[in-house]
Amino acid sequence: MQLISYDKDSAELRNFDKIDDVLSSIEAEKFNWLNITHLPSAEIVGFICKHFNIHSLWLEDILHLEQRPKMEETEETILFVINELNINELNKQIRKEHISILVGKNFVMTFQQEGEDLFKSISKNILSDKGKLRSKKSDYLLYLQIDTVVDNYFEVIEYLREKIEILEDELIDNKKVNAINEIHSLKKEMNFIHKSLFPLRQAIFDLQNLEHHLIHDSNSVYFNDLADHIEHLITLFDSFREMLTSLIDLNASNISNRMNNVMKTLTVISTIFIPLTFLAGVYGMNFKYMPELESPYAYPILWSIMLIIASTSLIYMKRKKWF
Amino acid sequence: MQLISYDKDSAELRNFDKIDDVLSSIEAEKFNWLNITHLPSAEIVGFICKHFNIHSLWLEDILHLEQRPKMEETEETILFVINELNINELNKQIRKEHISILVGKNFVMTFQQEGEDLFKSISKNILSDKGKLRSKKSDYLLYLQIDTVVDNYFEVIEYLREKIEILEDELIDNKKVNAINEIHSLKKEMNFIHKSLFPLRQAIFDLQNLEHHLIHDSNSVYFNDLADHIEHLITLFDSFREMLTSLIDLNASNISNRMNNVMKTLTVISTIFIPLTFLAGVYGMNFKYMPELESPYAYPILWSIMLIIASTSLIYMKRKKWF
Amino acid sequence: MQLISYDKDSAELRNFDKIDDVLSSIEAEKFNWLNITHLPSAEIVGFICKHFNIHSLWLEDILHLEQRPKMEETEETILFVINELNINELNKQIRKEHISILVGKNFVMTFQQEGEDLFKSISKNILSDKGKLRSKKSDYLLYLQIDTVVDNYFEVIEYLREKIEILEDELIDNKKVNAINEIHSLKKEMNFIHKSLFPLRQAIFDLQNLEHHLIHDSNSVYFNDLADHIEHLITLFDSFREMLTSLIDLNASNISNRMNNVMKTLTVISTIFIPLTFLAGVYGMNFKYMPELESPYAYPILWSIMLIIASTSLIYMKRKKWF
Amino acid sequence: MQLISYDKDSAELRNFDKIDDVLSSIEAEKFNWLNITHLPSAEIVGFICKHFNIHSLWLEDILHLEQRPKMEETEETILFVINELNINELNKQIRKEHISILVGKNFVMTFQQEGEDLFKSISKNILSDKGKLRSKKSDYLLYLQIDTVVDNYFEVIEYLREKIEILEDELIDNKKVNAINEIHSLKKEMNFIHKSLFPLRQAIFDLQNLEHHLIHDSNSVYFNDLADHIEHLITLFDSFREMLTSLIDLNASNISNRMNNVMKTLTVISTIFIPLTFLAGVYGMNFKYMPELESPYAYPILWSIMLIIASTSLIYMKRKKWF
Amino acid sequence: MQLISYDKDSAELRNFDKIDDVLSSIEAEKFNWLNITHLPSAEIVGFICKHFNIHSLWLEDILHLEQRPKMEETEETILFVINELNINELNKQIRKEHISILVGKNFVMTFQQEGEDLFKSISKNILSDKGKLRSKKSDYLLYLQIDTVVDNYFEVIEYLREKIEILEDELIDNKKVNAINEIHSLKKEMNFIHKSLFPLRQAIFDLQNLEHHLIHDSNSVYFNDLADHIEHLITLFDSFREMLTSLIDLNASNISNRMNNVMKTLTVISTIFIPLTFLAGVYGMNFKYMPELESPYAYPILWSIMLIIASTSLIYMKRKKWF
Repeated sequence: MQLISYDKDSAELRNFDKIDDVLSSIEAEKFNWLNITHLPSAEIVGFICKHFNIHSLWLEDILHLEQRPKMEETEETILFVINELNINELNKQIRKEHISILVGKNFVMTFQQEGEDLFKSISKNILSDKGKLRSKKSDYLLYLQIDTVVDNYFEVIEYLREKIEILEDELIDNKKVNAINEIHSLKKEMNFIHKSLFPLRQAIFDLQNLEHHLIHDSNSVYFNDLADHIEHLITLFDSFREMLTSLIDLNASNISNRMNNVMKTLTVISTIFIPLTFLAGVYGMNFKYMPELESPYAYPILWSIMLIIASTSLIYMKRKKWF
Repeated sequence: MQLISYDKDSAELRNFDKIDDVLSSIEAEKFNWLNITHLPSAEIVGFICKHFNIHSLWLEDILHLEQRPKMEETEETILFVINELNINELNKQIRKEHISILVGKNFVMTFQQEGEDLFKSISKNILSDKGKLRSKKSDYLLYLQIDTVVDNYFEVIEYLREKIEILEDELIDNKKVNAINEIHSLKKEMNFIHKSLFPLRQAIFDLQNLEHHLIHDSNSVYFNDLADHIEHLITLFDSFREMLTSLIDLNASNISNRMNNVMKTLTVISTIFIPLTFLAGVYGMNFKYMPELESPYAYPILWSIMLIIASTSLIYMKRKKWF
Repeated sequence: MQLISYDKDSAELRNFDKIDDVLSSIEAEKFNWLNITHLPSAEIVGFICKHFNIHSLWLEDILHLEQRPKMEETEETILFVINELNINELNKQIRKEHISILVGKNFVMTFQQEGEDLFKSISKNILSDKGKLRSKKSDYLLYLQIDTVVDNYFEVIEYLREKIEILEDELIDNKKVNAINEIHSLKKEMNFIHKSLFPLRQAIFDLQNLEHHLIHDSNSVYFNDLADHIEHLITLFDSFREMLTSLIDLNASNISNRMNNVMKTLTVISTIFIPLTFLAGVYGMNFKYMPELESPYAYPILWSIMLIIASTSLIYMKRKKWF
Repeated sequence: MQLISYDKDSAELRNFDKIDDVLSSIEAEKFNWLNITHLPSAEIVGFICKHFNIHSLWLEDILHLEQRPKMEETEETILFVINELNINELNKQIRKEHISILVGKNFVMTFQQEGEDLFKSISKNILSDKGKLRSKKSDYLLYLQIDTVVDNYFEVIEYLREKIEILEDELIDNKKVNAINEIHSLKKEMNFIHKSLFPLRQAIFDLQNLEHHLIHDSNSVYFNDLADHIEHLITLFDSFREMLTSLIDLNASNISNRMNNVMKTLTVISTIFIPLTFLAGVYGMNFKYMPELESPYAYPILWSIMLIIASTSLIYMKRKKWF
Repeated sequence: MQLISYDKDSAELRNFDKIDDVLSSIEAEKFNWLNITHLPSAEIVGFICKHFNIHSLWLEDILHLEQRPKMEETEETILFVINELNINELNKQIRKEHISILVGKNFVMTFQQEGEDLFKSISKNILSDKGKLRSKKSDYLLYLQIDTVVDNYFEVIEYLREKIEILEDELIDNKKVNAINEIHSLKKEMNFIHKSLFPLRQAIFDLQNLEHHLIHDSNSVYFNDLADHIEHLITLFDSFREMLTSLIDLNASNISNRMNNVMKTLTVISTIFIPLTFLAGVYGMNFKYMPELESPYAYPILWSIMLIIASTSLIYMKRKKWF
């Protein structure tokens, strides 16, 4: 647990192990940001909620990892729940992290599911007084935090774009025999992102239109910017969806093409040799009276006929572009 | 029929057989919850409706098992009709139960279709004074009841997820030859859920936005929570729908693949042996003058030619990745 | 032409042949319901419209059989146009009937296209004073009439459900070779219903939200009930649409399956016999020097080789689950 | 150029060649309808616009043949741009005509692209004082003109219906081998109609909701009627779209069926004769020691065996309904 | 950097290299248009923003090439971001250019990404006092600039239409074996346009509905015109989308057709010759007692039988329209 207390002139970062110490260290005349980077136990969150007079249903929202992104407000506080997405470096899979941001008059509390502190750069900036952050109110801190998460979405979308483009090239160059499993797994990943991205858009939209004493009119440009970014993400997301649909058509067409090629080979071979084999069979019969068999020119003549038949077939099929 | 009468200090549970006894036992100064766990006869419901001055059309809504979920209100009462879903343990099928909740100033009436009492835990909590339930008004009881039903939807959705994931694994691993019947039956189950889930969302939305003296502003956080849960359900439901569409593509692709494999085998065998059979046929002809037949080396030479033809074909098809 | 004049105390049914007689028989102090069961000539309707001061465009709406369902209102009258649907008992096809209801302060006029009187039970109830109908205003009569039509829609939907379920069973059990024509004809029937059902929903919605002195607030519960029924119809209708889409997939999959089976049979037979026929061809050749031909064991040895080849192919294809 | 000047008592039709003459002939105390049946030059329209103080952008709308249907208004005038559709009698194709209607206080101007005068019957009616047209204001004339165009849409839709139904019958009776080109060309025609029909709906909707001193409340029933007609057109249009989608399924299914039939024939022939040919090949071998060859019954026995094999295959395939 | 300062009487064009010089040259009593045709460095834009008191987030919007089209406003300025599209003459590909327009009371600033000056004709017109441009306010200049961009969209759409129509002809005439790659690449291009076109529509819609002292009511006709154009573009765009879907069906049908033709050829050849080969095989057997072999008429009789079989098959298949 990390508590950053700051006002225009000073900023201090303290680490705590016990929630009691944190709460007693909160300075009323300063602005306090409590950043918890591992999702704490229900008790601790309950303790905090009690301290700040927060409804037990919000407590559940903070603790419940499957909670959908949303924005909730009361007279005194705003709760913003968000799913951060990132790419796991090890297995190259998309990973979801549940983050809750609780905003009050002179405090912001962030609850991160686990792992690295996502908001490291923000706290650095506060401590080093970069970006005039210290003089801003809690809504600006909220904006910075949401913006950090939204930026990570762009990385995930970029990662998806690369995968789709590689697949697309393989399908156009006909390298992949059947890419349906890859397409399906991409669809699943997009489904996974969808479940976080679209509620987030709603939450940001709610925030943008919220009339609340904690949200200052002068900062509306920031929330408009967030809304703009999320719309951009959704445009990209939708274009990927169209791409995948097109890739399915491409894949189906490739499979049909291969089938066609196989069938054409079979047909070419059969069309040439089946009639010839019949002719050979005819002159293999054992009838007593078969006048052709006696002639000394019969054999070369038959070969000539066979060659004519075969080449006629070949020309016919060549014209039909079967090979 | 079960009547729970309670106020802040006391709570009493009584069971009745006759509706007259119930109505005469309702205590005006207490809060009364009448819980009927088997859908009663039209007469009894009519009797109750008359007693509480309820419109005969509501009577129909309570009795009609195919009634869509909805919320209705008059000056004095609110009717909430809901379809509870659960998994039948025996045949593993989704079962629908019609439940009506009638809310008045100092009473709540619940009509369950049949079977186990769904609200057992709520009545237990009232009797044991857990959860400060006794001091809350009728809208909180309504919330608890709807919440119980919504929680059951999550179980049904979870059960569906499992079925879809098993099917998905089978299709990706190519274990199932043709899963279209399974996909179709899943679609039917989703259709079945859809018919209960989407009207329920509308009903909860109506309840959330209802301005009524029975719904207290302080409890709006609970109805928001319900709306949040139902949105989460719908997000999951929609993602399943996309999954199923993707599984249909996967299935179609698997079928095409099998077909391709069958055709390739046919083509490989035919392409190799049909020309050879033709050659054998040629030297089986009975022409008198076939110079090749006389040569002692002709037979092994022909075998060599045949081997060359066969291996050339094999190499060609191997390169085309036909086997 | 049937005229029912009633007030709280009395009700009288009279049949007329001439429109003049009807109009002169209308009693101002009573409530009058003029029920015309065969669409009258343009003259008669024109005569009525003139008498009640109704716009000539409404006249067209009443007479035009292809008129879409809709609700229109003026200061003094409401026009409700509706398509009644029913199943023709003879050819089991869905039949559409154009019905117009014209509502004024002390009269209701119903124009039915032809055939049986759809509102027979309502007039019976009025005459026998059942259902307290006589004391209600014209909007209640309108409700009863629309409700009768909506109930008939449920029958048509039920009839459709049966047809879809029979088709579904046949497709799942693979009894039908190709059900695309049946699916197409079901789609056409749904298209036909769609054209009546969706405008009806809009008309009922308009009626529900209409502020008009002829529509009394106390009766809004009835129009809500109508809206509820029509929503239920639309939910069912949409679920049928999804079913049909799923049946098309099922059908396509069945066709593919059959094709697969045909191709597998061809491949199995060809794979076994084409190599054997080649071998037989080899030993049918007439080369002078073919050492194998002389050996007395050659023939049984060749048979053994052939059997080995055939059974190896069979085992291979069995493992691939081709038969 | 045709100018009809009329008031309640008189009506006069004059033809002009020069725009100056027209403008000087307009009588302020009468109502004037200027009907231009060939799209005039930019100069003439510019001249008119200048005369009536009309914005140059409207001038462009009037002259630009690809202008989308729309409704525009200023304080003093209303511009209604519309695409009239009709069937070219010669090549049976749908033809689009660009029509602009400019409505002012005491004048209406209609600009038709070219060809026959579409509004001939309206001008006849004015001149012969039919339909009490002369006493109506400019909005009624506008209604009549739009109504004429909308009526032509019904003819085009009817023409489309016929084409779709013919195609449908051919597909159901399996007469057409592949109707995809016809379906595609129908889709193109619908696309063509769509581009005119849907903006027209919006324009009529705008007109219906327009509050303007030129549009009188008493005429709203006419504009409602137009809106009703256009909704009817759109319902029909949408049902055709569904039909075409269904026809594509039908067509694809027909193609699959034919393919199936071809493959079945191949498989039936191959399954019967390939094993028999093998047997014939065996007894065509030249081994010295083949005991069967010596027996006098061998030949008929072999025929019997062959017949048994062939008929067994036939029965098997018959049972599988392959022919 | 180009600065055009003008009032009703005069207009002057000056080119600058340094931003300081530009800003000091801006004349307060004139109207100033600063046109920057290569996207300047962040510093310069930052400098300008500081000078005109513009928020740093707008600075980002101006510099960020991937910024979505949008409209933003403050009390004093309006920012319009737009993606201009054009066809690269060299590689015939669609090229996107990021353009920002910043509008203030007496100035307009345009930032073009690079390349040719898109607004050359507008500045010419100002300098030559064509189109009464000089007397109009900044919103009219904004209109002209957006209109220039929208006109370029029409060219891109036209270019797309040509490509689609060529592809369509090839598919209908069956010239292309498989056009799925071309269709896919068209889809990608449409996707690319979509990402610029739809946000632009929203931005123009926002501008049309904007109440701002910089946007004069008298110019609303221009913004309506823009909205009209963009709707026309979207109608065309949507119709192309439908076309492409139809082309995919056409393409799939063509592939099926070719497959069908290949299979039919195989089946025709096989159906004719396989039975004949069997017959030839029978009379090639070496049984001692085969009475037919002895007859002098057997050989011609067999040929006759074979011809009858072959022609019967041919007639049968001809009737089935297999060739």
